[in-house]
Amino acid sequence: ELQLNLEQIEKGGFDHFMLKEIYEQPSVIKDTYRGRLLADQGLIKLGGLEDHIQKFVNADRIIIIGCGTSWHAGLVAEYIFEDLARIPVEVEYASEFRYRNPIITEKDVVIAISQSGETADTLAAIKLAKSKGAFVYGVCNVVGSTISRETHSGSYTHAGPEIGVASTKAFTTQITVLTLIALKLASVKGTISYRDYNIYLQELELIPEKVEKALLSNEHIKTVGEVFKNARNFLYLGRGYNFPVALEGALKLKEISYIHAEGYPAAEMKHGPIALIDEEMPVVVIAVNSNHYDKVVSNIQEIKSRKGVIIAIVSEGDTTVKEMADYVIEVPNTPESLTPLITTIPLQLLSYHIAVMLNRNVDQPRNLAKSVTVE
Amino acid sequence: ELQLNLEQIEKGGFDHFMLKEIYEQPSVIKDTYRGRLLADQGLIKLGGLEDHIQKFVNADRIIIIGCGTSWHAGLVAEYIFEDLARIPVEVEYASEFRYRNPIITEKDVVIAISQSGETADTLAAIKLAKSKGAFVYGVCNVVGSTISRETHSGSYTHAGPEIGVASTKAFTTQITVLTLIALKLASVKGTISYRDYNIYLQELELIPEKVEKALLSNEHIKTVGEVFKNARNFLYLGRGYNFPVALEGALKLKEISYIHAEGYPAAEMKHGPIALIDEEMPVVVIAVNSNHYDKVVSNIQEIKSRKGVIIAIVSEGDTTVKEMADYVIEVPNTPESLTPLITTIPLQLLSYHIAVMLNRNVDQPRNLAKSVTVE
Repeated sequence: ELQLNLEQIEKGGFDHFMLKEIYEQPSVIKDTYRGRLLADQGLIKLGGLEDHIQKFVNADRIIIIGCGTSWHAGLVAEYIFEDLARIPVEVEYASEFRYRNPIITEKDVVIAISQSGETADTLAAIKLAKSKGAFVYGVCNVVGSTISRETHSGSYTHAGPEIGVASTKAFTTQITVLTLIALKLASVKGTISYRDYNIYLQELELIPEKVEKALLSNEHIKTVGEVFKNARNFLYLGRGYNFPVALEGALKLKEISYIHAEGYPAAEMKHGPIALIDEEMPVVVIAVNSNHYDKVVSNIQEIKSRKGVIIAIVSEGDTTVKEMADYVIEVPNTPESLTPLITTIPLQLLSYHIAVMLNRNVDQPRNLAKSVTVE
Repeated sequence: ELQLNLEQIEKGGFDHFMLKEIYEQPSVIKDTYRGRLLADQGLIKLGGLEDHIQKFVNADRIIIIGCGTSWHAGLVAEYIFEDLARIPVEVEYASEFRYRNPIITEKDVVIAISQSGETADTLAAIKLAKSKGAFVYGVCNVVGSTISRETHSGSYTHAGPEIGVASTKAFTTQITVLTLIALKLASVKGTISYRDYNIYLQELELIPEKVEKALLSNEHIKTVGEVFKNARNFLYLGRGYNFPVALEGALKLKEISYIHAEGYPAAEMKHGPIALIDEEMPVVVIAVNSNHYDKVVSNIQEIKSRKGVIIAIVSEGDTTVKEMADYVIEVPNTPESLTPLITTIPLQLLSYHIAVMLNRNVDQPRNLAKSVTVE
């Protein structure tokens, strides 16, 4: 009983660690900024990066390795590194990378992402990359973890302990750190204007309060979850920066609700998956303001004309998608490159509520371990 | 009635074009070799490649673009190019590539893959790559198609007309051409020994008869399909060269049976998807002889211990997996880099039979077009 009470205290009034951790995101993103994002001075300070900045500036390419949710954070980073810092990025599953005799040289920088810092496949991939002479940078959450010690340098996420097996705040703080790295490199390389750089710093400062605002949709998301809790399948669609968010949203639902959800880049729909669409297949579409907005609108039309049911994540003030989608969840506006930090939030909540309604063991889903320390 | 009879004649005695096209694979792979693979002389001749060989030899990296099944062929090629020719490869969805402000220079080679040669997103991506100065090489099936004219050079697959909307022989002939390109580059670059090169040429010669042999399992595969035709979901797992084959196998089932099937790299299972595993989720595992065989065996054990049902694609003479899996389908042995040409066959047949049993319109599945000429 003492144990139970202790756990309740640790959950801080929330029913599950996962929900607590979802709600911690505004504050842990701030923690991850602390001492690093100095928007008023127009500065990003990342000691681990600055000590090795030439490695990054001279890199032929950056290879990002990770597993599961960390791999998705790497995919988001691919967009932001290529877009802002103009460095070619390749993202690899650590498990595939380590067994494929990969082409790596001293001119490559490898970024290894792992919440626990103990992921077996990622650790093995790091050792392989080091043996080939690559410079390896770690992005871990657990201080002093094996990966943080095995890498040449790195930056910690400051998410605090993550207890829920399905990663939430670790993911958004990974993206936070990777965004800071990309912006720092962009400013050093001069691939971004001074003006744009400063706009990004200001916008980053606003992210915690926008995440807070996104969390206000919790009750609405719960009612949407209620409608779909018995669905057997889900599709999640996104484009560009929000393609990896779609993958991550689907993974969350898989992990804790055991519903088969799959993420796809929206434009690939018509090359196959659209055959699955009927009234029994809800489709979650990330349709926030972006470069691709019109294209995503077309994708939604295609799905609607095939009797698909749409749950859309839209930007505040959206009107077009609102008229077409069956359910909409609004999120605050932010520059496209930063949208993953915001659009992820409603998808976490949607998975959470569905899993709770299905009586799943949300914090410890079947078959899964928090950190995968074996192959 | 005349039309109907004509169609029956065109189907050459098969119930559907798709089945006819599956069975054509031994002969169209031979057609794709003709005049190019000269194993007895130790030669690969590819005019379109030889005219521009220095572009490839000097390339910083090769970027492969495609959509749907062609994108999967690109993923297979990534393994074979990196493995044999030691050139870094990045595979991109054409739809994502064209909208992401990609980093491409005159030092990059872009390979664009499209059966029809008319795929809108791929065509737009080609124009973008050309505008940035990249050399663009096409791998198309339809002679004189827009993409074959828009690219700087290329090699045709000789699959003949593909009528079934779900691509089968186009996929295997794409892999055939890409394998020839990779081997030619490997021999020119000296990244493969003369001995290994010749072994590969001999082994390629044997592929058509091995595909023929794989097709002999048709009746057995039909009985396996019978067991699973009412499954609501499937997972397909593979590692290394057979990870893209798993994706392609899942796509086939999606396209023509409308069953939600998803492909995954086997080692990623434990980072989430394994939560889905129970007795209602059949798992197709490609477990042929390879570098990863032991690892795949462990994956199978994990799935079995969670009551999952396994359909395994194994090499002739396999004993270990046979004891563990619920259903096994044997395929002939071949070097690991060539296995996708063989392991694909039973997955095509499995999808086909399930779709027929479900009374689907196999050759023209709902919502899908043969070539996607709009965005």
